[in-house]
Amino acid sequence: MEKSNYVNLNPLGIESDSMEIISRELSHLHIPEQYASIVKRVIHTTADFEYAHLFEAHPNAVELAKNALQQSCRIYADTSMIVAGVSKPSLKKLGCELHCFVHDEEVVAEAKAQGITRSICGINKAAQDERFRIFVIGNAPTALVRLCELYAEGIVKPDLVIGVPVGFVGAAESKQMLKESGIPYLLIRGRKGGSTVGVAMLNALLYELIKRN
Amino acid sequence: MEKSNYVNLNPLGIESDSMEIISRELSHLHIPEQYASIVKRVIHTTADFEYAHLFEAHPNAVELAKNALQQSCRIYADTSMIVAGVSKPSLKKLGCELHCFVHDEEVVAEAKAQGITRSICGINKAAQDERFRIFVIGNAPTALVRLCELYAEGIVKPDLVIGVPVGFVGAAESKQMLKESGIPYLLIRGRKGGSTVGVAMLNALLYELIKRN
Repeated sequence: MEKSNYVNLNPLGIESDSMEIISRELSHLHIPEQYASIVKRVIHTTADFEYAHLFEAHPNAVELAKNALQQSCRIYADTSMIVAGVSKPSLKKLGCELHCFVHDEEVVAEAKAQGITRSICGINKAAQDERFRIFVIGNAPTALVRLCELYAEGIVKPDLVIGVPVGFVGAAESKQMLKESGIPYLLIRGRKGGSTVGVAMLNALLYELIKRN
Repeated sequence: MEKSNYVNLNPLGIESDSMEIISRELSHLHIPEQYASIVKRVIHTTADFEYAHLFEAHPNAVELAKNALQQSCRIYADTSMIVAGVSKPSLKKLGCELHCFVHDEEVVAEAKAQGITRSICGINKAAQDERFRIFVIGNAPTALVRLCELYAEGIVKPDLVIGVPVGFVGAAESKQMLKESGIPYLLIRGRKGGSTVGVAMLNALLYELIKRN
């Protein structure tokens, strides 16, 4: 193979070259077919191969999520960075909507009044609309904990929760709680994760459905 | 110290608890005072302590950047995720504006016509407006390379470039090019980085100026 140029200027070429490098570096690991594109896209986004080891999935999560996306479900994200990062053309093709309520006026007022995170109040609001069948939690452990509580109370029944809050206070514990909740999940164990990781996972699912890759 | 609750529900409490844990885990490293808040916020955002070792700064970068921010400069970001993540109240207090042109109509058309990245075309457009004195590149090596070229040609003279593109094709090389360019920089060596890392660095500078922390 010829050595590639110093900097590849073609956007699609850059992505396929990257995915080739990732596949090569992952070739010693056995990653089940249905998770391969998700794990690769997370590594593409973070340049951190540890994610291959921290990734966990509920056995039905991918199938349920794809089904929900093909039924034009609503998706809730806990940060506006996630909303900014998810592929708009893919959402449009599938007729899906993606929302985040942390800057919603009602939610901001409620959080201030109660002295709790806007993330919790955002989840409470999304839970009132059953069209939200997929949740992407990239930042707030409190949002993920609240979601597990609402599930236990029978108030929400998501087809998928992407549980990837990052951090040092409650993140690992909230993901353990998700794993034990009964909710179909994709998650990253421990402290790591973040909005870009959540975006990568959701985009991987979307791209498979619209056959972008 | 009393053991904290399973999940801390107070947002400001969560952040200060996290920063305390990070400071403790970093206490064996000598991080110069002017970079401490930047490095800690990057780790807060990624839960990845390797960033403490990959961080590099031009000796004048922090001072020049703070000066530009206090003069209500414009900031250019290469992704809309960065725009979504940067603290809006802080920008407002300082009278700074933050823009990303990758979804700009002109830029999209130009990129398609030339078969190059929208990121390059976005940089070309920002370079025409000298109010852009800070650039945050979290995704596209091609944008960073273009910025270095424009600097070498005397077309832009940024006070700070936050160079943190992530990835496998050109990312490490583009950051090496930034380091050798003469531009004041904050950067992450190698493959790692991303939009959340760029946001963390810029927010750290903003929070110091508005005395949030």
